[in-house]
Amino acid sequence: MSYYAAPIARLIEEFSKLPGIGRKSAQRLAFHVLNMSEADAVHLSEAILNAKKNTKYCSECGNITDIDPCSICRNEQRDQSMICVVESPKDVIAMEKTKEFTGVYHVLHGAISPMEGIGPEEIRIKELLIRLQKDKVEEVILATNPTIEGEATAMYISKLVKPSGIKVTRIAHGIPVGGDLEYADEVTLSKALEGRREL
Amino acid sequence: MSYYAAPIARLIEEFSKLPGIGRKSAQRLAFHVLNMSEADAVHLSEAILNAKKNTKYCSECGNITDIDPCSICRNEQRDQSMICVVESPKDVIAMEKTKEFTGVYHVLHGAISPMEGIGPEEIRIKELLIRLQKDKVEEVILATNPTIEGEATAMYISKLVKPSGIKVTRIAHGIPVGGDLEYADEVTLSKALEGRREL
Repeated sequence: MSYYAAPIARLIEEFSKLPGIGRKSAQRLAFHVLNMSEADAVHLSEAILNAKKNTKYCSECGNITDIDPCSICRNEQRDQSMICVVESPKDVIAMEKTKEFTGVYHVLHGAISPMEGIGPEEIRIKELLIRLQKDKVEEVILATNPTIEGEATAMYISKLVKPSGIKVTRIAHGIPVGGDLEYADEVTLSKALEGRREL
Repeated sequence: MSYYAAPIARLIEEFSKLPGIGRKSAQRLAFHVLNMSEADAVHLSEAILNAKKNTKYCSECGNITDIDPCSICRNEQRDQSMICVVESPKDVIAMEKTKEFTGVYHVLHGAISPMEGIGPEEIRIKELLIRLQKDKVEEVILATNPTIEGEATAMYISKLVKPSGIKVTRIAHGIPVGGDLEYADEVTLSKALEGRREL
């Protein structure tokens, strides 16, 4: 037996399907919705539908966008000869926030993971190779995550792309800024040492 | 400049208005919605609108409900002569979960708080008094929160109800089960001592 009226129970159920939202948070969110003005509830509800309906993947880079090609791919101020390869659209946001990268992106939508049965065909590697043949690309920056899967994916792409003479680079691993040597794990520390640069 | 496509930016904005959801969580939720199936997004969106539209306050007890009177007030198995007074609908759920209380509720929708300009008229005390005159009530259990506002509200209601001869009780304060005497604050501990019972 549920302690909640049916519409509330259903809303709690829906909220608790979201990532990082447990039963207790879902309940708090549901009661918050009940206390919202009708207009605010409509706004929230519409924003969900709208985001789902009015976004697609950019046919060029695979990023999530409302226009195709996306605003980054169609921006002529950006260096189309430099492609930064990332695993997910979230990584594009993270890179953009640095304001340091002026090239374009290629979103793989995953990483090679034999454990989960994700092979090179499951992610957008083929599309990357097509782009490299079509466009004048000078550098491919591999910015997949520093995980086993991300590293494997970077290695795989690197081996495919290098023979074509295009420069392939990998983002640096090392101690995060503001981090502490004492608390860095050995692998990170040895990567940091390996990647040392002359000052 | 926003790094997100407009519909995503709007969804993040809407999510971050929810309690306990910061920018980072809102972004995670928004990307989760984008990865949902269209049907799931519709379910979530509808559940929000539905919960808002199809719930109201019970005209009897003030609890949130989809039918009026609510399922607790209309349940003939429940003891209508015992009214448990709580501050919010969430407290009704908390009480119901104990499965110990077989009476009915009265939701005040707040507590007296001179600091926030909430006087006795702003909360549903008048409605409680009307119920007490109308129905055969034998006991009023004051289950407002053990805060300054909750205590003040309990005292206030107690003074109003007592002259009519109805039994007025207050839920016990004390050490929470599983708690530790060492870490209990002095006020709680003295309340626990004050409320000691013979075994």
